[in-house]
Amino acid sequence: MNYPNGRRGSKTNLAPKGKTKPDFSNRGMSLEEDINVTNEYYLQAGVAVVHKKPTPVQIVQVDYPKRSAAVIKEAYFKQASTTDFNGVYRGKYIDFEAKETKNKTSFPLSNVHQHQIDHMRAVQAHGGVSFMIIKFTPLDETYLLPSSAIFSFWEDQWNGGRKSIPYAYITNEGIKIPFHYQARVHYATAIDKLYF
Amino acid sequence: MNYPNGRRGSKTNLAPKGKTKPDFSNRGMSLEEDINVTNEYYLQAGVAVVHKKPTPVQIVQVDYPKRSAAVIKEAYFKQASTTDFNGVYRGKYIDFEAKETKNKTSFPLSNVHQHQIDHMRAVQAHGGVSFMIIKFTPLDETYLLPSSAIFSFWEDQWNGGRKSIPYAYITNEGIKIPFHYQARVHYATAIDKLYF
Repeated sequence: MNYPNGRRGSKTNLAPKGKTKPDFSNRGMSLEEDINVTNEYYLQAGVAVVHKKPTPVQIVQVDYPKRSAAVIKEAYFKQASTTDFNGVYRGKYIDFEAKETKNKTSFPLSNVHQHQIDHMRAVQAHGGVSFMIIKFTPLDETYLLPSSAIFSFWEDQWNGGRKSIPYAYITNEGIKIPFHYQARVHYATAIDKLYF
Repeated sequence: MNYPNGRRGSKTNLAPKGKTKPDFSNRGMSLEEDINVTNEYYLQAGVAVVHKKPTPVQIVQVDYPKRSAAVIKEAYFKQASTTDFNGVYRGKYIDFEAKETKNKTSFPLSNVHQHQIDHMRAVQAHGGVSFMIIKFTPLDETYLLPSSAIFSFWEDQWNGGRKSIPYAYITNEGIKIPFHYQARVHYATAIDKLYF
């Protein structure tokens, strides 16, 4: 949890989630929850079909009690081999990972894993729309950043480059995602701008 | 497990999995496992990026023992809201469910669930490629059947229609999926024929 000396933002922006802000954009829900709500709205409204992938779990032992549901008694979390969200929007394959950071001046690359980068590259190579949704929580700002804008930073960090993507770069190369009452992370509008 | 009096197939075809058949197509792996192997090959060979979605699980209790991995001690299976497989192939969104049947003359609709039909309709409405992979295990024959070919049977069953899709219909409307040493369920060739 880094709170570096940011030059942006205000005390209002630093308010605890859902405590003092008068709008509906920050009611204590995580970015992932907000995207799930958005996806549910998109599905009902006929905008897109996008789902979060379930957390992969290695199941070791299951009990089958009489007259009640099977109970998993021993299981372990597995490493995911893809990103968290995928689906179809306006005929295109959509694939993304969502990350939030407490940072205000940059997005630390430690939030990203090699297998996610590999997956993003593969998706892009096959003509899919691949991006990350990055939320700067203290600023209450969320961006869609295309994967292609991430790859060079990812490689450079192993060659003496910086370990984070600057906020200014994200605001330039990404598209700000607006808040919408039902589509709390209304990323479809950002896809429209970047890919259509 | 139905073994109706089929008019097709031979004793050879009815042999237990992996026991007497000399080829590599039936070594005791389930259809799902064969598709997973195929997807792994497709990924490595740069053919497509398709993954099986993890089984959704509602996690209730997790233990965090010192110096070892977190252990899920209580969890329950949840109903999936989508189909099992999705990804991107030649720029298109691909989405399918895989089912095998012991039946030889038809595919029983009891293998399909309403939420899968709903999802297939939504995918198709948004321009995705939606289909089922159906394996007639005793015949060792596997078909790609486009979702659109399933919908009318699905509706008709509630209006006095039959509760299964005839084998002959599937062979006519579907594409037979060939076996390939590395792509054991080589569905990409069937997609090429139907959608490109």
